[in-house]
Amino acid sequence: MINRVSASLTEVLDGRWAHIRQAVRERLGAEFVTVPGETGDQARERVSRLIRSLPTDVGVASAFPVEYGGSADPGGSTVAAEMLAQVDLSLMVKAGVQWGLFGGAVVALGTARHHDEYLRDIISADVMGCFAMTETGHGSDVQQLRTTCTYDPSSGTFDLHTPHEAARKDYIGNAARDGRMAVVFAQLITGGRRYGVHAWLVPIRDEHGDPMPGVTIGDAGAKAGLLGVDNGRLSFDHVTVPRDMLLDRYGQVAPDGTYTSTIENDTRRFFTMLGTLVRGRVTVGAAASAATRNALTIAVRYGDNRRQFTRPGDDREIVLNDYLAHQRKLLPALAASYAYAFAQEELAVTMAEVFALAEPDEHRQRELESRAAGLKAVQTWHATRTIQMCREACGGAGYLAENRLPGLKADTDVFTTFEGDNTVLLQLVAKGLLTGYRDAFGSLDGWGRATFVAEQVREMMLERTAARTLIQRLVSAVPGRDEEVAVTDRGWHLAIFEDREKHILDGAIRRLRNGAATKKDRPFDIFNDVQDHVLAAATAHIDRITLEAFVAGIDRTGDPEARALLAKVCDLYALTTIEADKGWFLEHGRLTPARSKAITAVIDDLLRELRPHMRTLVDAFAIPDEWLNAAILREEPGRQEAMAKEDEAVRSVLAG
Amino acid sequence: MINRVSASLTEVLDGRWAHIRQAVRERLGAEFVTVPGETGDQARERVSRLIRSLPTDVGVASAFPVEYGGSADPGGSTVAAEMLAQVDLSLMVKAGVQWGLFGGAVVALGTARHHDEYLRDIISADVMGCFAMTETGHGSDVQQLRTTCTYDPSSGTFDLHTPHEAARKDYIGNAARDGRMAVVFAQLITGGRRYGVHAWLVPIRDEHGDPMPGVTIGDAGAKAGLLGVDNGRLSFDHVTVPRDMLLDRYGQVAPDGTYTSTIENDTRRFFTMLGTLVRGRVTVGAAASAATRNALTIAVRYGDNRRQFTRPGDDREIVLNDYLAHQRKLLPALAASYAYAFAQEELAVTMAEVFALAEPDEHRQRELESRAAGLKAVQTWHATRTIQMCREACGGAGYLAENRLPGLKADTDVFTTFEGDNTVLLQLVAKGLLTGYRDAFGSLDGWGRATFVAEQVREMMLERTAARTLIQRLVSAVPGRDEEVAVTDRGWHLAIFEDREKHILDGAIRRLRNGAATKKDRPFDIFNDVQDHVLAAATAHIDRITLEAFVAGIDRTGDPEARALLAKVCDLYALTTIEADKGWFLEHGRLTPARSKAITAVIDDLLRELRPHMRTLVDAFAIPDEWLNAAILREEPGRQEAMAKEDEAVRSVLAG
Repeated sequence: MINRVSASLTEVLDGRWAHIRQAVRERLGAEFVTVPGETGDQARERVSRLIRSLPTDVGVASAFPVEYGGSADPGGSTVAAEMLAQVDLSLMVKAGVQWGLFGGAVVALGTARHHDEYLRDIISADVMGCFAMTETGHGSDVQQLRTTCTYDPSSGTFDLHTPHEAARKDYIGNAARDGRMAVVFAQLITGGRRYGVHAWLVPIRDEHGDPMPGVTIGDAGAKAGLLGVDNGRLSFDHVTVPRDMLLDRYGQVAPDGTYTSTIENDTRRFFTMLGTLVRGRVTVGAAASAATRNALTIAVRYGDNRRQFTRPGDDREIVLNDYLAHQRKLLPALAASYAYAFAQEELAVTMAEVFALAEPDEHRQRELESRAAGLKAVQTWHATRTIQMCREACGGAGYLAENRLPGLKADTDVFTTFEGDNTVLLQLVAKGLLTGYRDAFGSLDGWGRATFVAEQVREMMLERTAARTLIQRLVSAVPGRDEEVAVTDRGWHLAIFEDREKHILDGAIRRLRNGAATKKDRPFDIFNDVQDHVLAAATAHIDRITLEAFVAGIDRTGDPEARALLAKVCDLYALTTIEADKGWFLEHGRLTPARSKAITAVIDDLLRELRPHMRTLVDAFAIPDEWLNAAILREEPGRQEAMAKEDEAVRSVLAG
Repeated sequence: MINRVSASLTEVLDGRWAHIRQAVRERLGAEFVTVPGETGDQARERVSRLIRSLPTDVGVASAFPVEYGGSADPGGSTVAAEMLAQVDLSLMVKAGVQWGLFGGAVVALGTARHHDEYLRDIISADVMGCFAMTETGHGSDVQQLRTTCTYDPSSGTFDLHTPHEAARKDYIGNAARDGRMAVVFAQLITGGRRYGVHAWLVPIRDEHGDPMPGVTIGDAGAKAGLLGVDNGRLSFDHVTVPRDMLLDRYGQVAPDGTYTSTIENDTRRFFTMLGTLVRGRVTVGAAASAATRNALTIAVRYGDNRRQFTRPGDDREIVLNDYLAHQRKLLPALAASYAYAFAQEELAVTMAEVFALAEPDEHRQRELESRAAGLKAVQTWHATRTIQMCREACGGAGYLAENRLPGLKADTDVFTTFEGDNTVLLQLVAKGLLTGYRDAFGSLDGWGRATFVAEQVREMMLERTAARTLIQRLVSAVPGRDEEVAVTDRGWHLAIFEDREKHILDGAIRRLRNGAATKKDRPFDIFNDVQDHVLAAATAHIDRITLEAFVAGIDRTGDPEARALLAKVCDLYALTTIEADKGWFLEHGRLTPARSKAITAVIDDLLRELRPHMRTLVDAFAIPDEWLNAAILREEPGRQEAMAKEDEAVRSVLAG
């Protein structure tokens, strides 16, 4: 029973790719939904089968060029994957490996001959493939991969080789069971010189499914979750790879072994290549948030029915959602989920815009990568925390597989470390902020020259994300003295989020500069001693762009009632974010003790005001009941009432 | 390779029951250790087999009376279960169900005839049993169970009945597969009057393993973890139970149906009965912390070997544990684990003392229940957070079942809600604080009469837990003005923890009193509006007794080097606890902004100082390598060095 406000909220949440969201909701029925309690083999078989039977019009492969059957819509493909995450996370990850990582790498790093030969089969899933980048020894620092691929002009082929065990490709999706080919990342060596990491398209299994000569395939075995994804390990023992299998958009090797590239610097070239693969991070953040919305919907709906303990002077037991402590758990998480939904939508729009530019814009590209990294980190941590909280909010029922929460938790858990470890990603965000995206190249290592700390970042700070004019107007309207402003003033929220970001960043720059002067002999310590400070700057930055996206989202909402409700939710998001970091605001004189306490009191008021709208807020996520797939929500109509009546009879016997 | 300091730490951590800890370490080899990647059926079969083959001298059943083969050592049995948690959490929970909950209820609630007839078979596991308390509709509010057991004087039997689906017994360990009998909790009705919840010993399966007439047994199905525990559901359709199967220590029914009890008040009687079962909560908290120590050991040892990113100006990559951000994750959690180990030891000692009293002491009993509840809540949340963090700290490897962390996470997850939902338990702690354990009866519902808020709690606040004299001396030595005291002053830590507890509690009392005056028509709101405040008081209380236990533990440490190290760890625990709540301290003028910032700087210093001792600190947990059972730690000697050498060769090629 969806009310009007809820439908209006769905409309604004669905955003630019509403047509894809709606198509997925309509096209994917119960047969695609995750099955609790399967063995690993059962899950792999099912997901492998389903991925081949996904309807073509649900958009998961829509990022491919039009000429090969795609619709050149990277934002749409991200949104489709996000929707798939609500159906089955294994299916979503498997799709992400096949069409996002594997297919995406062939598109982005390959050239016409690769596209012509492989893309149609990749889109149809007739050729299943792997994205073989991570090695056992190198996950975060992929620039230092140890696999080598050495060109031999005499044979006109490459020699792909795994020099030791730590160089084997590890955790590779599609490797253990289904992959026929792999995009393998390795150090390109030709003419006795190394040119850094490049990618090759390499067959790993023959038509019978047996490993190709020289290829050793292992199974990563049981995992915490994602049972339907066949993660494996690949090693190459001097495997011969034809010259034309080098994905050579960014670097070419002539028959005589001459290396050419339009990007001279190896590091810059590598991170340019990586940058084309940003869609993976955009998708993972989106998927984490989507799964979180499933969990919140289950917990909120359960909390609306479940009763425990009698109200004083009343026979009827109290509904869980009426407890302040329960509201304190669910509602701030729900508000953050709204915030991230808007931030994610804006990120997908930005990605679509940057990808559509006729001329590449390096500054915008780096900024996109930074936001993708940051939003991936905060959304996946939000998922981990919130799904855990939801499972606890459902008590023992939340521990049973039939109620979906254990699966959501276990499946999303890996998101905090795959497609980039969250801490490393936040460091990337910080690096972008510190250098204003100049000379950053997405590199995560030693921070390059220490001199960058002399650079200022002010002009970048004002590069707002969305609804710039509106936000500037709101901020400008804030009176000079904080104490005169209501704690629910939106301009004040925006101003204080921005102020925190600037101040933390300025402090980090100051400390780095001092360190550069005094710790010349310990270059690692210069950065390491402020690592926490720098990560705090990144978090404050992502909080700010998230709030701005929320404000822009409210501005796009037509229905006045929905708009008013969203404004309350945004208040709750802003104030609980401030409250969570109130130590910082108090330490830095940004809040007086009295105002800090007032914020907590206002949050309690907001919880009371939002209590009646909890159900509306989760209904607006518009997740079909069969996707929720939770036994505790599967009640025949009238059963709840019948049970209550039966129970009333027992209670009166017991009271008698 | 255990160093001397580490051995000294083990000695103090092992505490009073060192002999049991050592016996378990020596007696339980690899064959008892959890097997990753099993199916549910495999896990149930294995655990069911192992529980019958546990050596009798490892103490899991030692709480039973001496005359039946136990050693009347409840603290020892808790410690044994804690050790078992490091081996296999399913095995520990299954043991806890059999000997703790089921056997424990027969001992505590039954009388000589029950003991004589059943205890030997229970101890030998020849009779496996269930603890059938929780119902689908009532988990936290067990006083409101709906199952009825009605006495019929004409037949001299009880009629045990499940009136509706929400009254079925749910999540019951040992029910789905192995249980032959169950202690069933139900509302006792005789002579047309209800006397509240009592327990009966009821056969649920016959000798062939088939359900007894009228008993319906279901399977709770797949769960997030604890695959080896056969949780199920029990319903009773007018099952006849002989009169003498009532566990009648606290309430008796004569052949003619006359009810007698030494405790007149039904509520008081019920919570007295529940109070005898406190060992369950003591054990769960202990087990959660024990499993957390496994996770920390794995993450710290991995972080000591794993390298990523090159140090500027250095070829060698940086060890993860050298990163400040990594230290910030692992070390405060490690310090808290030390703190909880001491607090748990003290709790077990207190339990042993209270159980050994010739005359029951209601005040001490309530205090014990409160501390058991509080330490169960904080330790299980600590486990959930810390194991999650450890899994992330191990990157992709942390997601693989072969590295144990997924199992530790999934298995301990239920601890936050079983044996009492953590939020409900903290409310119980708060209630004890607010009433000074008078009239509390462990009840969790409507808080009884509102007038209790007029009572003061000061005298209770000074009931310190351990090393009273030492702690009083340290607190007294703190100068009047905080700013003059070093932030590492132990007396200052103790004083500020105590001050926070008092102040939060006073504030809660004031708000409750105001509420009682102004919200007379909304009695539920009086309590609900301050629920968060009240929970904060409970947390502050548990923090205080934890810190005091840590201080007492340091005082027991003989080896000066170990003592000095422990003091640093205690500094880190105290300061990170203060830092985590610095918003409160700043709001209430307990910290100046400058001192608050100083605390963060001192924490950074402590991390640097403790970095070289990380390995020593986890080695002191003395967890046998085969219990850790993590592939990432299973390195043949020299392999690490060989790999590094190989890698060095590749690196020089790549650099060339």
